[in-house]
Amino acid sequence: MIRIGIIGFGYWGPNIVRNFQGTPGASVRLICDLNPRSLERARKAFPHIEATAHVQDVLTSPEIDAVAIITPVATHYPLSKQALEHGKHIFVEKPFTHSSAMARELIEIAERKNLKIMVDHTFLFTSAVRKIKELIDADSLGKLYYYDSMRVNLGLFQTDVNVVWDLAPHDLSIMQYLLPQKPQAVVATGVDHVNGKEDVAYITVYFPDNIIAHFNVNWLSPVKVRTTLIGGEKKMLVWNDLEMDEKIKIYDKGISTNNGEGVYDLLVSYRMGDVWAPRLDQVEALKMAAQYFVQCVEKNETPFTDGVAGLQVVQILEAADTSMQNKGGMVYL
Amino acid sequence: MIRIGIIGFGYWGPNIVRNFQGTPGASVRLICDLNPRSLERARKAFPHIEATAHVQDVLTSPEIDAVAIITPVATHYPLSKQALEHGKHIFVEKPFTHSSAMARELIEIAERKNLKIMVDHTFLFTSAVRKIKELIDADSLGKLYYYDSMRVNLGLFQTDVNVVWDLAPHDLSIMQYLLPQKPQAVVATGVDHVNGKEDVAYITVYFPDNIIAHFNVNWLSPVKVRTTLIGGEKKMLVWNDLEMDEKIKIYDKGISTNNGEGVYDLLVSYRMGDVWAPRLDQVEALKMAAQYFVQCVEKNETPFTDGVAGLQVVQILEAADTSMQNKGGMVYL
Amino acid sequence: MIRIGIIGFGYWGPNIVRNFQGTPGASVRLICDLNPRSLERARKAFPHIEATAHVQDVLTSPEIDAVAIITPVATHYPLSKQALEHGKHIFVEKPFTHSSAMARELIEIAERKNLKIMVDHTFLFTSAVRKIKELIDADSLGKLYYYDSMRVNLGLFQTDVNVVWDLAPHDLSIMQYLLPQKPQAVVATGVDHVNGKEDVAYITVYFPDNIIAHFNVNWLSPVKVRTTLIGGEKKMLVWNDLEMDEKIKIYDKGISTNNGEGVYDLLVSYRMGDVWAPRLDQVEALKMAAQYFVQCVEKNETPFTDGVAGLQVVQILEAADTSMQNKGGMVYL
Amino acid sequence: MIRIGIIGFGYWGPNIVRNFQGTPGASVRLICDLNPRSLERARKAFPHIEATAHVQDVLTSPEIDAVAIITPVATHYPLSKQALEHGKHIFVEKPFTHSSAMARELIEIAERKNLKIMVDHTFLFTSAVRKIKELIDADSLGKLYYYDSMRVNLGLFQTDVNVVWDLAPHDLSIMQYLLPQKPQAVVATGVDHVNGKEDVAYITVYFPDNIIAHFNVNWLSPVKVRTTLIGGEKKMLVWNDLEMDEKIKIYDKGISTNNGEGVYDLLVSYRMGDVWAPRLDQVEALKMAAQYFVQCVEKNETPFTDGVAGLQVVQILEAADTSMQNKGGMVYL
Repeated sequence: MIRIGIIGFGYWGPNIVRNFQGTPGASVRLICDLNPRSLERARKAFPHIEATAHVQDVLTSPEIDAVAIITPVATHYPLSKQALEHGKHIFVEKPFTHSSAMARELIEIAERKNLKIMVDHTFLFTSAVRKIKELIDADSLGKLYYYDSMRVNLGLFQTDVNVVWDLAPHDLSIMQYLLPQKPQAVVATGVDHVNGKEDVAYITVYFPDNIIAHFNVNWLSPVKVRTTLIGGEKKMLVWNDLEMDEKIKIYDKGISTNNGEGVYDLLVSYRMGDVWAPRLDQVEALKMAAQYFVQCVEKNETPFTDGVAGLQVVQILEAADTSMQNKGGMVYL
Repeated sequence: MIRIGIIGFGYWGPNIVRNFQGTPGASVRLICDLNPRSLERARKAFPHIEATAHVQDVLTSPEIDAVAIITPVATHYPLSKQALEHGKHIFVEKPFTHSSAMARELIEIAERKNLKIMVDHTFLFTSAVRKIKELIDADSLGKLYYYDSMRVNLGLFQTDVNVVWDLAPHDLSIMQYLLPQKPQAVVATGVDHVNGKEDVAYITVYFPDNIIAHFNVNWLSPVKVRTTLIGGEKKMLVWNDLEMDEKIKIYDKGISTNNGEGVYDLLVSYRMGDVWAPRLDQVEALKMAAQYFVQCVEKNETPFTDGVAGLQVVQILEAADTSMQNKGGMVYL
Repeated sequence: MIRIGIIGFGYWGPNIVRNFQGTPGASVRLICDLNPRSLERARKAFPHIEATAHVQDVLTSPEIDAVAIITPVATHYPLSKQALEHGKHIFVEKPFTHSSAMARELIEIAERKNLKIMVDHTFLFTSAVRKIKELIDADSLGKLYYYDSMRVNLGLFQTDVNVVWDLAPHDLSIMQYLLPQKPQAVVATGVDHVNGKEDVAYITVYFPDNIIAHFNVNWLSPVKVRTTLIGGEKKMLVWNDLEMDEKIKIYDKGISTNNGEGVYDLLVSYRMGDVWAPRLDQVEALKMAAQYFVQCVEKNETPFTDGVAGLQVVQILEAADTSMQNKGGMVYL
Repeated sequence: MIRIGIIGFGYWGPNIVRNFQGTPGASVRLICDLNPRSLERARKAFPHIEATAHVQDVLTSPEIDAVAIITPVATHYPLSKQALEHGKHIFVEKPFTHSSAMARELIEIAERKNLKIMVDHTFLFTSAVRKIKELIDADSLGKLYYYDSMRVNLGLFQTDVNVVWDLAPHDLSIMQYLLPQKPQAVVATGVDHVNGKEDVAYITVYFPDNIIAHFNVNWLSPVKVRTTLIGGEKKMLVWNDLEMDEKIKIYDKGISTNNGEGVYDLLVSYRMGDVWAPRLDQVEALKMAAQYFVQCVEKNETPFTDGVAGLQVVQILEAADTSMQNKGGMVYL
């Protein structure tokens, strides 16, 4: 039985508790939050689970095997470090840390002490992302051309991070998971209007073989958009995460180059075929993530969303910040 | 009566002829195309109008007052220059020219000879853009935050220009028309996959006061998207040009900053109000543009879509090319 | 403090318990379900509330003031009757009863014993229906023309009732609430394909002044549709309950008759104006309904969704069944 | 060469002329319209074709082999009759005639004189309807359950017919074409609000084997809807004619009945599979119809949209009128 302590019972914390509670082989033993109102909510929602305002109760308890860190980004590193040093596995909210140096240090500690780090890139456990992974791995799309994501809506301004660190980790972790190539360089632009942190930003990531990825993140959009386009030589794909049904559509469309003989002939022709929306299983992604973490700890296996995966996302976030400060200069990874 | 000669009877040419024919005070006298098939089509569609394969017939004819140049970009400059030098007003397809130096030269010639240049930024004559202009001029949106445009679809690869020069002129001319501020700098990223010209590209334009504009243009998208978001302090706006009705929606939504007293209080709050889709007149934009050109020539007035407006778009296109070649990197305007 | 007993802990029961638990002045004392699995679920979800497999425990307990009956339709009458006879107020799932005679008997008992009956027409507590009511009451739509509802999806076949009794009560109760006129007659058509109960049905309800209402209900649709059109002389309205935002759109569109002079003139002309989507409050309708029931009991007030309102819906359902059996003959109400 | 005369140059007439002009083996010789304005338009649009205000010029000319009758419904019978009696094939706008008796008489005359009647059920030549026909003929949907059509919008009030005769012929002709069974009975309801003709109506058509069809037609809807649902045992289909792409979607969804053992088991279960949107050819349906008519005349073949097909639609329209006047009530066919 993996005994779990939870630090942070804000917006996402209750879901974490509920899902670890429902995971076979796991048991949530302690919930911690500094905010008395959150603590009160925790006690009411989970009366059988102990709750505390002191992080050290979680970090040092001999009754805890693993700690879930569901707190603001700035606290991920110090809390993770202490947890690891006290011999606890960690399940950390995304983004992993606020700098790649911190991420590297945590990875190093965990390796030395043979502890597991799993970063909560929940989207990788959705049936939509799983299906896209399956399609790309089976080469259904053919040679990849681009990955284009838009994640915009009105709000939830964060006080400690900009819109890039808030919204892009979702898409960057998905991109990293889906694309076989490694990103090479980042160009980002963005501005702030409200509280000194960028609230509108655009990130381009260059890959080998002319693959390009782009991320449009915005806290000031009147409408909510969660759409990703992936273009390949054989097929193209649109993932609209706000659709109830038909989240993923695969288009048998594309272009091909001709040996245009005449001077007036087009050199590129178009292929228009069927559209297909595969059925997706109804699963709760966070439940899958919780089960997977517990299983990795039990079997001493490395999660695919480990510290290194978390670090790779942080590296792009760092590069994006640097590029934004330079107003769009390229930053190599 | 303004006597008009048309050079270029490809995809867009027939619409130009039809609309100038229908304009009071104007008469199309001569159609020219080098492609015998296009010429044949012209003769069939407009049997009463003379047609020729020789551009000089149009450029030098004393029976022609104004020339509409509806040809590939690379030919805009030489044809425009000759037309102006032969004392003809010009109506030129967008983008105006292939370089800002050429644009400047044409503007100078026209000024010297008191001739009119009008660049066919047709979108500025749509009721959608007119309505948005009206809203911004009346300060309905409040202080502007961002302008975010997406114009993607599968194809029509051009052989002489990349996707930026093909698709972005629409949106850049609209942005120039709508925003009172002057753009300061450009960052662009993009790659090519098919024929050596960029087919996926992203352009950021910086303005004073932290206004940012962004353009997503793509020839390899399986779906057609023509959407622009404009965010302001008071209201926000979505223009979906593919909607039959309700092309423009105005959202009474926004955010405001608080003097958060408590440490756990959000510093930003949200305002959610009604949504409103104004009725738009059903007009054919090109018809309005044709009438406006004829009127400007008749009354010796300068069109607001004159050579300078065309030059401003070309400058951003040039800057985008330069930035793309540098893989990002800010280019001042 | 109103002490509440819940009979039925199936699909909807847990929501009922949760909302009555959260209602000030109310306390859920006992949950009853005959199905051991449901009972087990109840005990797990609400460990502090007693649970029983015997309805008599609820119906006869002196510790219970009001009973919520969340069971299949056929059981509404016997359970309600016993509850009333034991002096308990009742909150009954829709449709109220399986026949109008039963409904009348229950109303009579409740009146005699000064007990409250509230039928759970939850939709009447949504902000969408409240807003439409407000618009109609303020004569914003003008003279009403028609009410046209479509409520179709794949499934949840009921074993005890047909699609009319399953889906139409929602819309009939909304129609009754919204339209000031009283319905006069019903025509219905429908067939069954699967289990001997109609699974596709169409109901027309005639009103005075040429107002017509129509209901399309279907358990065999591959797509989910929840749309109502309401046409009036001044304005028209579309309510799409599946929209996240902009559930209600009001169209300033209509027609007007002309004194067409010429023989070729249209006698009817069209008015096309703006579209407006009012902001709707985010409320949980069932929470409002629970609070309202408790308040009616406390203050000895008659709910507007009382037994008579429930009866009026049952009368149309009965008439629809009769008409369907006659393959579309008109049944007066 | 089939020489064609056109009677009626209103809204639809220009399309008819253009398509017959473009049909190999056909030549439009004469256009007739009583309205001087329409006649003027005809002369301007087709300067090479003779135009007349006298129908007898068309009906009696020895230079005309076939007459296209594109006029209001009430005139279809007298014009068709004269055309046939003068030995001309006819292409008649839908609905064929204003009564089934008239339709039968015309069919009889045409048979006697070996002339062709083709009713312009244009939709049967669209690639959408062709694709659905293909799917049903291949038994892809399995045993059919229902056919549910909604065709509503604001407008075009007709002065001579109600909304049923104006809009339903499209859908009734499609239904007749698609469904192998013959309709048995009709129930219709509807009311008028504006000009004494029903402007909102609902038609149910009963078929053998519990197949049911329903048609929602409305001239007073603020939104335009053109959607048909077809449910079958194996698959279900949605045809949204307003979609640019993906007009037809086929859902691999359905239900199956179980031998429910336990008392709490559902007796019906659901199958949820992929969704598929087949590519449709881009064809102009009216062009196909014109070519088909010319070919039938040339080869002396009976069109599948002949007078009998037209009569079958008229019979349902008549039955719907009768049923509406009886306020529902089944009318056998």
